[in-house]
Amino acid sequence: MTGPILGVDPGLSATGWGLLEPKPDGTAQLRWNVIRPPKPNDADLATRLCYIHDQLAEVIARYRPVALAIERPFLNRNVRSAVALGQAQAAAMMAAAQVGIPIAEYPPREVKQTVAGDGAADKQVVAQALMTRLGLAELNAPSDAADALAVAYCHYLSVPQLELTAS
Amino acid sequence: MTGPILGVDPGLSATGWGLLEPKPDGTAQLRWNVIRPPKPNDADLATRLCYIHDQLAEVIARYRPVALAIERPFLNRNVRSAVALGQAQAAAMMAAAQVGIPIAEYPPREVKQTVAGDGAADKQVVAQALMTRLGLAELNAPSDAADALAVAYCHYLSVPQLELTAS
Repeated sequence: MTGPILGVDPGLSATGWGLLEPKPDGTAQLRWNVIRPPKPNDADLATRLCYIHDQLAEVIARYRPVALAIERPFLNRNVRSAVALGQAQAAAMMAAAQVGIPIAEYPPREVKQTVAGDGAADKQVVAQALMTRLGLAELNAPSDAADALAVAYCHYLSVPQLELTAS
Repeated sequence: MTGPILGVDPGLSATGWGLLEPKPDGTAQLRWNVIRPPKPNDADLATRLCYIHDQLAEVIARYRPVALAIERPFLNRNVRSAVALGQAQAAAMMAAAQVGIPIAEYPPREVKQTVAGDGAADKQVVAQALMTRLGLAELNAPSDAADALAVAYCHYLSVPQLELTAS
């Protein structure tokens, strides 16, 4: 794995992204942000999906990740929420597929298990594990972006390579 | 309502589309087809979604519909199926939204109620009602395309205008 990994935590009201770029010295540079589509009262579903797609396409064009790692909708939940998540996920994945970037999907449980060693870990525990593993004193990313970084790191750990810490 | 209405019955394995073009003489010209993305063994989810998107974008560019009418995922079913439907729907809607075409969503029950007068009507009854209302002796469209034509016709009936028969 050479080059940045883009993690995405999809959602119709907020889609977090986190870029994890391994450096030759074994550290990693992190970038992140949260995409906030117009609210349902201000835009229809298709416009909101296009917003997620276009914003992520810009991130991809700027940082040229070698892979997109994305949370797969958790199916054992409210069907309406699952459909909305799936739609946001579709918009995000299409932005990557359209420029030939390979996509890896991870169920939330697998992300938590891989990063924090516990498939049922809560957000704080996962964020703390991420900080520890990357040697970070703090992680100022908002929750959705931290989740996206965790997916990116999960993908990083899922392919064989050297350990790294955040620069 | 002037100009063609594009109906879409979204699905990951088959997405039907049906174009209903009202003519000045009160008849309607119909076109339809079924988009069949590569199968799961041959392509990943994102590639299949892009296929649906790109094929529909071509249909839209060719026939320039004034509206896209699409079936909304039926939520009272298997969550995995609902998510897949929602993803196919997202890909289709984005193709329309990206070129500024307004989108109307209809639950399957409303399509059946509007076209056949019975929200629980089966596919054959809906197709027969469509033929009768459009004055067609036969409708050779495959099931997914007939469903798409029904959504287009449902949208046509949902905006005030004159009656029409298929030319």
